[in-house]
Amino acid sequence: MYKSGRHFLQIPGPSNVPDRVLRAMDFPTMDHRGPDFADIGKKALEGMKSIFKTEQDVVIFPSSGTGAWEAALVNTLSAGDRVLMYETGHFATLWQALAKRLGLQPEFIPSDWRSGADPEKIEAYLRADKNHEIKAVCVVHNETSTGSVTQVKEVRDAIDSAGHPALLMVDSISGLASIDFQFDAWGVDVAVSGSQKGLMLPPGLSFNAISAKARAASAKATLPKSYWAWDEMKGPNEKGYFPYTPATNLLYGLNVAIDMLHEEGLDAVFARHARHGEATRQAVRTWGLDILCSDPRHYSNVLTTVVMPTGSSADAFRKTTLDNFDMSLGSGLSKVADRVFRIGHLGHFNDLMLMATLSGVEMGLKLASVPHNRGGAQAAMDYLTNSERPTEAIAAAQ
Amino acid sequence: MYKSGRHFLQIPGPSNVPDRVLRAMDFPTMDHRGPDFADIGKKALEGMKSIFKTEQDVVIFPSSGTGAWEAALVNTLSAGDRVLMYETGHFATLWQALAKRLGLQPEFIPSDWRSGADPEKIEAYLRADKNHEIKAVCVVHNETSTGSVTQVKEVRDAIDSAGHPALLMVDSISGLASIDFQFDAWGVDVAVSGSQKGLMLPPGLSFNAISAKARAASAKATLPKSYWAWDEMKGPNEKGYFPYTPATNLLYGLNVAIDMLHEEGLDAVFARHARHGEATRQAVRTWGLDILCSDPRHYSNVLTTVVMPTGSSADAFRKTTLDNFDMSLGSGLSKVADRVFRIGHLGHFNDLMLMATLSGVEMGLKLASVPHNRGGAQAAMDYLTNSERPTEAIAAAQ
Amino acid sequence: MYKSGRHFLQIPGPSNVPDRVLRAMDFPTMDHRGPDFADIGKKALEGMKSIFKTEQDVVIFPSSGTGAWEAALVNTLSAGDRVLMYETGHFATLWQALAKRLGLQPEFIPSDWRSGADPEKIEAYLRADKNHEIKAVCVVHNETSTGSVTQVKEVRDAIDSAGHPALLMVDSISGLASIDFQFDAWGVDVAVSGSQKGLMLPPGLSFNAISAKARAASAKATLPKSYWAWDEMKGPNEKGYFPYTPATNLLYGLNVAIDMLHEEGLDAVFARHARHGEATRQAVRTWGLDILCSDPRHYSNVLTTVVMPTGSSADAFRKTTLDNFDMSLGSGLSKVADRVFRIGHLGHFNDLMLMATLSGVEMGLKLASVPHNRGGAQAAMDYLTNSERPTEAIAAAQ
Amino acid sequence: MYKSGRHFLQIPGPSNVPDRVLRAMDFPTMDHRGPDFADIGKKALEGMKSIFKTEQDVVIFPSSGTGAWEAALVNTLSAGDRVLMYETGHFATLWQALAKRLGLQPEFIPSDWRSGADPEKIEAYLRADKNHEIKAVCVVHNETSTGSVTQVKEVRDAIDSAGHPALLMVDSISGLASIDFQFDAWGVDVAVSGSQKGLMLPPGLSFNAISAKARAASAKATLPKSYWAWDEMKGPNEKGYFPYTPATNLLYGLNVAIDMLHEEGLDAVFARHARHGEATRQAVRTWGLDILCSDPRHYSNVLTTVVMPTGSSADAFRKTTLDNFDMSLGSGLSKVADRVFRIGHLGHFNDLMLMATLSGVEMGLKLASVPHNRGGAQAAMDYLTNSERPTEAIAAAQ
Repeated sequence: MYKSGRHFLQIPGPSNVPDRVLRAMDFPTMDHRGPDFADIGKKALEGMKSIFKTEQDVVIFPSSGTGAWEAALVNTLSAGDRVLMYETGHFATLWQALAKRLGLQPEFIPSDWRSGADPEKIEAYLRADKNHEIKAVCVVHNETSTGSVTQVKEVRDAIDSAGHPALLMVDSISGLASIDFQFDAWGVDVAVSGSQKGLMLPPGLSFNAISAKARAASAKATLPKSYWAWDEMKGPNEKGYFPYTPATNLLYGLNVAIDMLHEEGLDAVFARHARHGEATRQAVRTWGLDILCSDPRHYSNVLTTVVMPTGSSADAFRKTTLDNFDMSLGSGLSKVADRVFRIGHLGHFNDLMLMATLSGVEMGLKLASVPHNRGGAQAAMDYLTNSERPTEAIAAAQ
Repeated sequence: MYKSGRHFLQIPGPSNVPDRVLRAMDFPTMDHRGPDFADIGKKALEGMKSIFKTEQDVVIFPSSGTGAWEAALVNTLSAGDRVLMYETGHFATLWQALAKRLGLQPEFIPSDWRSGADPEKIEAYLRADKNHEIKAVCVVHNETSTGSVTQVKEVRDAIDSAGHPALLMVDSISGLASIDFQFDAWGVDVAVSGSQKGLMLPPGLSFNAISAKARAASAKATLPKSYWAWDEMKGPNEKGYFPYTPATNLLYGLNVAIDMLHEEGLDAVFARHARHGEATRQAVRTWGLDILCSDPRHYSNVLTTVVMPTGSSADAFRKTTLDNFDMSLGSGLSKVADRVFRIGHLGHFNDLMLMATLSGVEMGLKLASVPHNRGGAQAAMDYLTNSERPTEAIAAAQ
Repeated sequence: MYKSGRHFLQIPGPSNVPDRVLRAMDFPTMDHRGPDFADIGKKALEGMKSIFKTEQDVVIFPSSGTGAWEAALVNTLSAGDRVLMYETGHFATLWQALAKRLGLQPEFIPSDWRSGADPEKIEAYLRADKNHEIKAVCVVHNETSTGSVTQVKEVRDAIDSAGHPALLMVDSISGLASIDFQFDAWGVDVAVSGSQKGLMLPPGLSFNAISAKARAASAKATLPKSYWAWDEMKGPNEKGYFPYTPATNLLYGLNVAIDMLHEEGLDAVFARHARHGEATRQAVRTWGLDILCSDPRHYSNVLTTVVMPTGSSADAFRKTTLDNFDMSLGSGLSKVADRVFRIGHLGHFNDLMLMATLSGVEMGLKLASVPHNRGGAQAAMDYLTNSERPTEAIAAAQ
Repeated sequence: MYKSGRHFLQIPGPSNVPDRVLRAMDFPTMDHRGPDFADIGKKALEGMKSIFKTEQDVVIFPSSGTGAWEAALVNTLSAGDRVLMYETGHFATLWQALAKRLGLQPEFIPSDWRSGADPEKIEAYLRADKNHEIKAVCVVHNETSTGSVTQVKEVRDAIDSAGHPALLMVDSISGLASIDFQFDAWGVDVAVSGSQKGLMLPPGLSFNAISAKARAASAKATLPKSYWAWDEMKGPNEKGYFPYTPATNLLYGLNVAIDMLHEEGLDAVFARHARHGEATRQAVRTWGLDILCSDPRHYSNVLTTVVMPTGSSADAFRKTTLDNFDMSLGSGLSKVADRVFRIGHLGHFNDLMLMATLSGVEMGLKLASVPHNRGGAQAAMDYLTNSERPTEAIAAAQ
């Protein structure tokens, strides 16, 4: 069926890519070993440090975020190493499965997928590991399958309280550049991210931020690695180059996206996401539907996962919104398949795009005969007109 | 101030340009006299005939729509000629002023800007012109300044009833390709249009459709003309070329836009605009505001002009929506300056873009402290979920 | 037939459009009456003044260059006015025909199409016009059909020597931004230009630069005009706006093109064209072919027109280069149809694009069995490696 | 320094990306799990089979070609496995180093970098491996560092003659889609390729083609793998999806590039490259310079590596061509650093782009004072005008 107007890509990533980024990617590919490329490479690497809020190292892979998961593990660990992981949701589970495939021994703290990782459980687990056999604690910052956020600083504190030397590895694939992430201040050792969420790019680039401690661990780690090897990046990266052909045109886009994030200001970006997260939750509550994340302290401002009333199919509802309103919503994954849907409100986004999205959800609920109360979109409008604009809020705070 | 997300261009034209059209325009310029160009020229000229619903001639100018106004007059008329025009609003007034500048004698039937042209008044006027001195009747199909539609077929019938030989000239700059226009079936002699409305292109191209009768008149018309001269177009156009350099890259886009209109189907395009027009009017009524067009038979499905409550400034309100929600609305022009604003719902548009637009208006009314009732956006949602989808409606009708 | 690689657009305009310009044009159309547009409008108008080298007025039309020809005449002249024009070639002839269509009385100094206008003939003509009935002298700066340049300053001096008050109007459609043009210093009254030559844009914009004297003349001129009327531009232009919808996306491109010209530096741009003009002429001489322009003082650095040996068809040759090498060359127009071809070496161009072009010509001559000597491309290489680079030359001169 | 005109990217990959491909990549990112994506995924996977000339499996990774090297090995081999590799040049050496890093035991047949792999040496080596401990033979089809081609079919025959069960793995990163490659007919077990060479895309996608035998081997291979694991691809790929987020926008481009290759016809593509390879070699010989590949049977039609005369620096020469003519040439790598330069003549390319390239080389040799004879570009023109056009040659052969 012919579809007029713009598609609304309201999955929790890939997010809507700004025209400035798309146009930048549309320039001719250049010689990645020529002198002009060095400026592009340096800008990308330095720029990503500013986004991760780190003065330590960042590496960029031509790969999806899954590759950066693998890179985090193979650079720092050896076959059979124990790692503590936390079942915040589907993506935490996939990372754990990946660790297993690589020959590690992940230990998985179970959860009901309705909150971020519990630092107390992690601390208790680590305290029990008297011999410090656990080499790494891996958590997902913003669990894209559930819309729950792990308080990374609290996890760091838990590790420190336990006096445990494990590395702290954090997947912030969908958190970075949408909600605050402070690699250095929070004491993260390895961060994992990808291009297609808060960075507002198409998929195809992934990132590791690397602490000095992780760098030291990598010198002893024996899992086989080549493509993902950090050590081969260092030399070329220092001059703005890469050890193998980088994804040149995505790097053009990355540099523009970094500029855009700083033009808006990271604090304004985070405040904008917070505002849209709360407006969305107000809408969901008005509809009388449940938010999957049960702990308000862990609400994600990147996406909101909505639980369907018993008897209603989330996938049938999503098909209704796609067919009628040309809007893609995120599906429930694995354990929550067909039981939840996810509203992405991240990246290059604004109030009216949110209102389009919430209106589409509300109309979809009606057309799909999902029991709900009217007025969710209206509630979001009320919130948006009563709450401060992000820039006002930031200006007021300064 | 930094603006995240997409701008909402909800003026009644230029309308939102589809990415397919923008990308087509982004290809390298080619030799407009080379053999490959002929296919592009022919496709554009034939394609525009299908949009005007004519088997007579169409010409394309590299110019804004104003140029095609001028072309319509200078090709068919001579200095001092009397022409009957109808004050449906600001653009009808501008066309009349242009006629005056060119040395014609426009006679202007006055109106309150709240409806399309009244065929009875036209008929009466023509009947009074016993000597058939009036050479042309000029009406605006969709008056972009007011949101009122003139029933062109009724004007044709009025001319015929009066037994008057005047040419019928119609400005369908903002009507064409959004609401039905039938050049041949309605007996129009000269139609005027532009690229930046229903044709979903940037501004820069304008069009005349030309009846055999208008062509014959042009042989005798003596107003000086060169750029706009139809006669020089004919020879080159037949082979797909133009007498002077055409706006090549806009033609690339035009051919894609014509394809898109036919992929959707013109009837579906018109039904979509009708649906969005009615949804918008439901919202306006719910807000308790007046629609400038006072005659429901003349409601425009291209735009809706909303009258501000006494004491509220339309321009202050528009500034509020622009500053807070990055949405451009149309201003009140001339007689209705600052007293009305215009919501464009034309071109490359869909239900969620409309809901974003109406939500933005409703939130803007609140932030600008314009007296209104809540619930307009909600009313539009109710309408959209209760009315048939355009494609269903068309399928059902077949 | 499928064509791999890039097309070589070596007609003397439209010229090759830089990717930066194409990408700029590919951004969404915006509200041409909104506050953000004013910056774009002002930048375009001010930028064009810097290109014309004037502090007087510039206007921008959404039209091809032909429109700006018409604008120059209708704004300054009245029906029956005598104007002195000079037959430098096909485009001068077309401008004269246009003047005639508009009801003026052009008087046309004949020429063999092999040089620019002769100032002495102009001076003599004007001296004979004792009553100063001639209202304007119109010359073509760079005659695109022949590749001859008129020395505009010499024409100015001729008019002054004759003590004649006629306006000096100059078509620099294909000269501006490729060869030097100094509106103020040379005392031009009206200049005409277009977007698709040295300005490196697609066709669709045209320009007039306007002296105070021309402005004064326009107050008394009575030719009917509306679209082209300068007077209606003034008010809106001062604030960055236009009296009717401008060609927004072409203006985006124009502003980038102006930036690019200043980044390179106008002097460097002119030196580059001079270098490529001379390299081309060296090639043509080596092939043993004639350059249409017979006066080296009038050689154009924008294009080179090559005379075919008797018995060879220029059009058959051009078809050979197009079919075999995907290169468009300019045809001979009117009087010199099929007898000459034109090599464009203007706009966004460099040494290797020139070598591709000249190699294509040389191979085409061979494949089309046009009698010629080998070695033209080689001669151009010799010249390019022996002559200074433009930037060196300019640096040395400073 | 400001550079006018187009850059000439004449390294042997990334190659010049067609505008059609760049524009396709410039469309908004879509939901990679939505129903519309399936068509894109299927088209890409099926399309790549047609390019590899296989009816077996193809997988697509979001990665550079290096990733597909790693994927070939980790999917089929186990720690400590012996693999036979052949030192055709720098990239063969890098692949061997990668194998070593992964814990394999590569055995490396040495060579002087001046030809493709010698099948006789491979056969002899395999015959000596009585116990069939060698698990794979890995060769580079088109060695991008030297411009020598390995005759893959002869290697297959050598393995068969030796009666050896080793897998045949072929890196055709820079060969595929520029010179013939027949995965099924030649009995290749794993092929490796990348997007940025004959496929005319930016870097960021890599490929494996997989024989049934390789697929069977992968069931037993124990090297750890996850991102590169073929087994997880199979299920999603069958429906047009991927196990993790694919590089959506590069896939848009890939599908257009595949269309373009088939529109031209693979045979015509190969014939075009052969023509340009021979023209280039004629130029090099005329300059009196050596071609690094010493065996004409192994000449690459993708690139030509030129040996500098003793005493001349290849890098100084390359800097000269870059600074003076905005052309990037390939550097000598590792063993031949500064001693050779490489001319890429692959991908989206044509006769005039080649002439620009060869003219740039010839002028660069002169400006860099590299001893050489004039006339190389002229010799290439002579060849191009005497040899058949690819399409004629193919038509004649049919």
